[in-house]
Amino acid sequence: MKNSVLLLLLAVLALGCQNSKTENTGKNTVAPKETMSAADSLKLAKEIENFTPENHVSTMNLIFGKPKYDIKNIGILVYDGVNELDVMGPRYVLGQAMGVKTRLISLKPGNIKTVMGVEIVPNTVIDSVNQLDILIIPGGFKGTIEAAYDTRLHEWIRKIDQTTKYTGSVCTGGWILGATGLLKGKRASTNWYKEEAFLKKYGAVPANERYTQDGKYWTSAGVTAGMDMALAIMKDIYGERYAEAIMLDMEYDPHPPIEGGTPEKTGWVVNWMMESMYDAGVNPLIDSLEKVKNAIPKTTPKNQ
Amino acid sequence: MKNSVLLLLLAVLALGCQNSKTENTGKNTVAPKETMSAADSLKLAKEIENFTPENHVSTMNLIFGKPKYDIKNIGILVYDGVNELDVMGPRYVLGQAMGVKTRLISLKPGNIKTVMGVEIVPNTVIDSVNQLDILIIPGGFKGTIEAAYDTRLHEWIRKIDQTTKYTGSVCTGGWILGATGLLKGKRASTNWYKEEAFLKKYGAVPANERYTQDGKYWTSAGVTAGMDMALAIMKDIYGERYAEAIMLDMEYDPHPPIEGGTPEKTGWVVNWMMESMYDAGVNPLIDSLEKVKNAIPKTTPKNQ
Repeated sequence: MKNSVLLLLLAVLALGCQNSKTENTGKNTVAPKETMSAADSLKLAKEIENFTPENHVSTMNLIFGKPKYDIKNIGILVYDGVNELDVMGPRYVLGQAMGVKTRLISLKPGNIKTVMGVEIVPNTVIDSVNQLDILIIPGGFKGTIEAAYDTRLHEWIRKIDQTTKYTGSVCTGGWILGATGLLKGKRASTNWYKEEAFLKKYGAVPANERYTQDGKYWTSAGVTAGMDMALAIMKDIYGERYAEAIMLDMEYDPHPPIEGGTPEKTGWVVNWMMESMYDAGVNPLIDSLEKVKNAIPKTTPKNQ
Repeated sequence: MKNSVLLLLLAVLALGCQNSKTENTGKNTVAPKETMSAADSLKLAKEIENFTPENHVSTMNLIFGKPKYDIKNIGILVYDGVNELDVMGPRYVLGQAMGVKTRLISLKPGNIKTVMGVEIVPNTVIDSVNQLDILIIPGGFKGTIEAAYDTRLHEWIRKIDQTTKYTGSVCTGGWILGATGLLKGKRASTNWYKEEAFLKKYGAVPANERYTQDGKYWTSAGVTAGMDMALAIMKDIYGERYAEAIMLDMEYDPHPPIEGGTPEKTGWVVNWMMESMYDAGVNPLIDSLEKVKNAIPKTTPKNQ
């Protein structure tokens, strides 16, 4: 096996280490797409020739180079009503960081139930966590609105944010992050539903992007955008080749069965139905919480 | 609100109910993309004008039409070492079926830990489930190989399969489904790793696709492909507009930060590293299980 890898490497070198991007001609046809320099390739060839499980860390270092930051602790907030994909996309991607502890951090002790009813056992609670290198705040529906009015949670987020390298939100998690005041003046993204109204309420600048970086603040559009954002964060820390490895592991070459996923790629009937459904769930809750504290905007949905 | 929707509808009708596909010009610019006939649009306009929470089911029926099947019970298999995204992608998508019970079904009582270490509380165990309309078998890593040798599990799958409308697998879950014999002679997909070898071992025909339908058997490529497959199943049952609604809910208009996600879109260095890693985890386990039963192929990885 080692020898055949070495031969393949030498073949690639003989081809002049071209930065060739190849077309996708079928799932199983492997063609070289490589950006490593000839010198590094030769160095790597020697490493590979002598590869053992014991020296795999040095091989990894050669392949990926030095990370931008020394990340040790990653925390993903969870709560009753959190969206399981907002959580699990980033959990799966960020959990592949090298030598890192990734935890699901709950508002209170006990299991949580996601927006679709999946019961999950969190690793710890916010009161037990004082420092994180990366904090991700996922969204959801009613539980997210309640969290956007939870001043105790906001205080914890602001405390943790003081020493994070990355503070991020997925989907309507941006409503929670926005409510802390940390997005003021920052370009940001959130779920499509009432997107501009919510961002402006919190003083953020709508970026109209799949995911947005403004300094250490990363915010994504709805649900599945959290996966794209998490991959971009991994690329930022560990480089393109590391992101490539995670994407291969999760075979992330998406092909949705139909075009869709944004209001403008969706017919008006479905847009109307989804906005009506969200309105029916969100508006009464916001009305009742507004009576306690005027923290979230109650706007009329776009296009109506 | 009702009036403005009606006005919008009439405007669309006035435009001749064109099946216009619009370009994505930015996340918040809503333009009509609609395929409803003029007659149905007028009927819907009247429904919308009289829309109340009480009659929302009849409005939904008008929007989506009659489902292909009356789906009541969906089950997703879980086990220690299952890949959480293999589970949660389909769980989130299929869980949005109308009036359906969607359960995580475990091999044995107690919580399970996913391949990345997330603890989940299953809804029930295989011994308590005798019928499902849809069965999904997710993949993983070592736990998946063990399940591919678990004859008790295979018996349960074959029993459930007798009355399913859809039997599906995600990623290496195809190894488990294949081991039951149900994929014999069927076109199928699975994770990229040793894909052809595993499919051929189980008598399946490698389809080389993101996800594959052969009769009622649906099989997908690795991890994230399960989400695409689940959306395609929902489209098959409830129609395109329903899939559109779920995709809008999960803002599924993916934009990975880099090209990748398949061996041919990945550089050789990362391909080599990932295959080596998988080999190191998979081969010794297969060796030891082969001693008990010759049920899974131990092949040399492609390209080495």
